[in-house]
Amino acid sequence: MATIKDVAKKANVSVATVSRVINNTGYVNTETRNLVLEAIQSLDYIPNELARSLFKKQSNIIGVVVPHLTSLFYGELIEAIEAALMPYEYKMMIFNSRNDIEREQKFLSVFNQYNITGIILVAHLQSLPSYLDLNIPLIAIDHHVADTIPSVSSDNVMGGQLAAQHFVASGAQKVIHFRGPSFLLTVQQRDQGFLKELAPHGIASVHYDLDFNTPNPEEIKAFILKHPDAQGIFCDGDLIAMHVLKVLHELNIKIPEEMEVIGYDNLTLGALMTPSLSSVNQPIDTMAEAGVKILLDIIKGEPKTAENHSFPVNLVLRDSTKKH
Amino acid sequence: MATIKDVAKKANVSVATVSRVINNTGYVNTETRNLVLEAIQSLDYIPNELARSLFKKQSNIIGVVVPHLTSLFYGELIEAIEAALMPYEYKMMIFNSRNDIEREQKFLSVFNQYNITGIILVAHLQSLPSYLDLNIPLIAIDHHVADTIPSVSSDNVMGGQLAAQHFVASGAQKVIHFRGPSFLLTVQQRDQGFLKELAPHGIASVHYDLDFNTPNPEEIKAFILKHPDAQGIFCDGDLIAMHVLKVLHELNIKIPEEMEVIGYDNLTLGALMTPSLSSVNQPIDTMAEAGVKILLDIIKGEPKTAENHSFPVNLVLRDSTKKH
Repeated sequence: MATIKDVAKKANVSVATVSRVINNTGYVNTETRNLVLEAIQSLDYIPNELARSLFKKQSNIIGVVVPHLTSLFYGELIEAIEAALMPYEYKMMIFNSRNDIEREQKFLSVFNQYNITGIILVAHLQSLPSYLDLNIPLIAIDHHVADTIPSVSSDNVMGGQLAAQHFVASGAQKVIHFRGPSFLLTVQQRDQGFLKELAPHGIASVHYDLDFNTPNPEEIKAFILKHPDAQGIFCDGDLIAMHVLKVLHELNIKIPEEMEVIGYDNLTLGALMTPSLSSVNQPIDTMAEAGVKILLDIIKGEPKTAENHSFPVNLVLRDSTKKH
Repeated sequence: MATIKDVAKKANVSVATVSRVINNTGYVNTETRNLVLEAIQSLDYIPNELARSLFKKQSNIIGVVVPHLTSLFYGELIEAIEAALMPYEYKMMIFNSRNDIEREQKFLSVFNQYNITGIILVAHLQSLPSYLDLNIPLIAIDHHVADTIPSVSSDNVMGGQLAAQHFVASGAQKVIHFRGPSFLLTVQQRDQGFLKELAPHGIASVHYDLDFNTPNPEEIKAFILKHPDAQGIFCDGDLIAMHVLKVLHELNIKIPEEMEVIGYDNLTLGALMTPSLSSVNQPIDTMAEAGVKILLDIIKGEPKTAENHSFPVNLVLRDSTKKH
């Protein structure tokens, strides 16, 4: 690759002069400037990464849109995406929407301004056309955008099934499902798997929707008190499950003897709870690697079908559930 | 601000021609190219954010170097830094070193390639000269680089003092301090404040160093068993404290009657533990805002003294400590 010295030599000027032209600082007469610009062009000289971006319309930056940064699940997922990008020399830029549609609106122009090379949506509120108009390669991880956008997720139906199978084996007659926001496809799929597995056994199930990151403990308490005959609780997130454990302690309900609790995401901290939390484990690293690979293929121009790639989950049993 | 149309009009060419010159695509003869370049220069036309970066040597990107992304404290701190940058239209790019000096080495060239406008060090392993050679405005948040680099932190001495004052009031005779890595100035300061407050009361203190993010529960257990006469444990991080709570449960040691526990950082999850965790609270938002303000002043060229700005902490008492 040509260096600034090669440019200086070809244009028959000093390195300092080339630098002044590149950086647009100091006076350089038009004739000399043209000589330098011609030398830059003929040698295909790239001043730096930003100049390269300007010429190639590529920043080698992958934008990752997340709903917040203060959940351990997203922390782990972002770290896994970054690790998956690393061998390819791509940089990750995090766009934290805070679930604010106006904040996300601003991101759309930033993606263009910075010539972002690809976008990974972990969450989105803006319309699909807003993203498609950007004409930037796009995938979703742990998230569904539209049937026309490739996505990578874990098998959420299977997650719901595994939780239900455990309650069936425990001989439960009625269970509670504290779901995440039910407009999310992932939440709908977990619910679907959960109910499908309970139905043949005639086990009753009641559900209540909560925010993943800020579940209201008062609502959790009220719902548990409303269903004193339940014997198991399935939560769509470990943070919800941690709140449930706390509420059960306050109500002096014995875990797991009187009430079993299963969380979702298998966060490191779940193992530190008392009792330690049983949880559905998503293969975060595998999901991130698969998502990055598909996105980079799209960037390279390889034709991709917009299918969903789903990876199996497993149920990690700890002390908040009965041993069978 | 000049548009591409203004440039085309002034150079007396089509918009498509201006676009070809800017993007370096297609053929434009030298004379026309020069007319376009002159028009761009005289109108101060900025093709896009990346071009602006190229000319101004500014990306409006602030790089934030963190040791990992899977701790809630750093999640909260990064989110606070991003929120503080937002009114100034700066973008944040996270550089996750994973405490790997070779990984951090690569960041140094990326900072240059992308013309990063400023750097916030939340952690660093590379030498100070490596950073100074970059000639990029630099500050530290919750971290100390050198006396010559401005930094923002919370009052770590005060944090240690508040924990000790509580144990004094409880009438403890001996306490344990589970410190973070003691090469960190923050850890040394907490220890200093803790011991200073205990000394006049003749309270014995023993300490053991642990990793903030991956403390070893076996080491915690062994050290607690080695000091059965201790009545209080001060932990330099909430994650360490959560492990301590778990170990105490396993040992059937009653909290807070037989052993009080105080954590550090006041993470949201601490309140969900059983018993809920008392903890020293750092003013994360205030620290982030102050740090960003100082960094932006340095970027603007305002002279700044390299002082440390320290903000007071407070002790949040919950159920892991005795009521006085």
